[in-house]
Amino acid sequence: MKSSRIRDLIVLAFAIALAVPSTFAAGLARAADPLPSWNEGAAKSSIVEFVSKVTRPGSPDFVPVPERIAVFDNDGTLWCEQPIPVQLHFALDRVERLAPQHPEWKSEEPFASVLKGDLKNALAGGEHALLELVMATHAGMTTTEFEQIVKDWITASRHPKTGRPYTRMVYQPMLEVLAYLRANGFKTFIVSGGGIEFMRPWAEAVYGIPPEQVIGSSIKTKFEMKDGKPILVRLPELNFNDDKSGKPVAIHQHIGRRPVMAFGNSDGDQQMLEYTQGGPGARFMLLVLHDDEKREYAYGPARGLRNVAIGAFTPALEEHAKRDGWIVVGMKSDWKRIFAD
Amino acid sequence: MKSSRIRDLIVLAFAIALAVPSTFAAGLARAADPLPSWNEGAAKSSIVEFVSKVTRPGSPDFVPVPERIAVFDNDGTLWCEQPIPVQLHFALDRVERLAPQHPEWKSEEPFASVLKGDLKNALAGGEHALLELVMATHAGMTTTEFEQIVKDWITASRHPKTGRPYTRMVYQPMLEVLAYLRANGFKTFIVSGGGIEFMRPWAEAVYGIPPEQVIGSSIKTKFEMKDGKPILVRLPELNFNDDKSGKPVAIHQHIGRRPVMAFGNSDGDQQMLEYTQGGPGARFMLLVLHDDEKREYAYGPARGLRNVAIGAFTPALEEHAKRDGWIVVGMKSDWKRIFAD
Repeated sequence: MKSSRIRDLIVLAFAIALAVPSTFAAGLARAADPLPSWNEGAAKSSIVEFVSKVTRPGSPDFVPVPERIAVFDNDGTLWCEQPIPVQLHFALDRVERLAPQHPEWKSEEPFASVLKGDLKNALAGGEHALLELVMATHAGMTTTEFEQIVKDWITASRHPKTGRPYTRMVYQPMLEVLAYLRANGFKTFIVSGGGIEFMRPWAEAVYGIPPEQVIGSSIKTKFEMKDGKPILVRLPELNFNDDKSGKPVAIHQHIGRRPVMAFGNSDGDQQMLEYTQGGPGARFMLLVLHDDEKREYAYGPARGLRNVAIGAFTPALEEHAKRDGWIVVGMKSDWKRIFAD
Repeated sequence: MKSSRIRDLIVLAFAIALAVPSTFAAGLARAADPLPSWNEGAAKSSIVEFVSKVTRPGSPDFVPVPERIAVFDNDGTLWCEQPIPVQLHFALDRVERLAPQHPEWKSEEPFASVLKGDLKNALAGGEHALLELVMATHAGMTTTEFEQIVKDWITASRHPKTGRPYTRMVYQPMLEVLAYLRANGFKTFIVSGGGIEFMRPWAEAVYGIPPEQVIGSSIKTKFEMKDGKPILVRLPELNFNDDKSGKPVAIHQHIGRRPVMAFGNSDGDQQMLEYTQGGPGARFMLLVLHDDEKREYAYGPARGLRNVAIGAFTPALEEHAKRDGWIVVGMKSDWKRIFAD
């Protein structure tokens, strides 16, 4: 074979590889099972079939790459939110650490109860008490300082039951979904009721989701020059509550496109799934049901599971899912593994 | 040559092309002049030299791809904002179109003056009058309806002096910078004082910037189910004013990383450039000065150019640029062409 012929072949190979790298990569991904931690069944099939039909050129359901937007709730969907949400654990630890600078907390609720270790009483004040805890522990520093505080805490803290770092309490089957979607040209976003600045410092390393694709609740910040340095100061004032009806609003504000796929686990995700489904063409909505007391936690109150104050999956939500064709994943039967190790 | 040897070579070529497509593409981009509409000079060199040093592996100024964030103001930086900002033209046209449904506007300012064609008097009320015009013309419909209104208008409207569509009043040299940065692994964002929903419907086609990378001012929206359909309704209430100190706040809220490069043209961009410069490592800040009355417009009031109410480049800003090493681009001398045609 002449060397010019070989050169032509190499050029051709280059040209093909450059022109269709995503198709090539997608082909490789399809060759192996992209979701090895999922048991065979309706839930797993529905994901793979949906991704196939929206990415296959010529398919009537084809979605162009720029419109392949997938949104994921975080607490209870990508990582464990029991026995208490991770960010609440963070806030409680911060109250203890900051207490010496706040002698008044000894007699002020909800701080007094937190310092006595009485979480139930601390949270008796409901949403208002929670907000007070967040403002007192998440504000008053620069955004750069807060990022470091979160990084330090997430490295040092441990889940109270398993003793593992929280970043290892993420769901392996969902990590596989994230990677599978990205290999198929999707942009993956977090849309969480949790704090945007509490997730960004570790979301890229843990989920492969960069800061600009993390959406969440936030407090206000203020730009100022301090000693000639530009800083953003975190203020004790709510900016946006990214839960329930707030989720579609935030998705529109931040992404500006309606998602094609949405993943959640609780009543707080209902509107995000409704909004996703409301778009034209093929759409995919999925809810994770925590029904595995042995390997994780079991809570609903759907299907007679115990009720929870935060992260409830109600019978009404299950009814809604059934009516609108949303996939409900039972962790017990659908997931081969819950965590990576 | 044996066929196995040829196969090996092809596999190798594939592997290389897959492993380093961005490096390969960047190499191709470097081969030709990436900024043909820029005259040779300090401004052009500064861009090329900066991009080289932050993308060259092993360079002390190397910036990893995920951190290559570049932010661009829109009005006066990417497209023409004279004789009036494009979105103001849109608002005025909307007032005329909506007037039959608002007989009260005949006697209410700023609407009465708009309907009489007296723009000066209409805007005499300053920011408050502007806000009233925006609320009356940008709210009250769904986000989907508003998107269509903007698309229809931007297709039909013409620049009052040139008679061209506004989407052809974009600066060719800046389009080249956008493409050049993306070919070098940068994510390009718009960070504009203008309305986020006014830019998104056309920014992808015109600038190659997808909706999720457009940041701007916004009004509030509300999620509701109407006849079983999930919609977002635009409310006559300001959500965020993305100008001056608002720009770093919005960048942090939306992107969550400090930009490496920032491009602006007026006092409203100062804080965005300061914030960009405040990060560690190499940073690049650039301001466009409109000093070309013949090919576009000339306004400052820096360098004795005429003053303007919106989009001013003041002597103080020029002084600031000089002190902090920000590049000032004179359109007259630095740009070979202003528009594509």
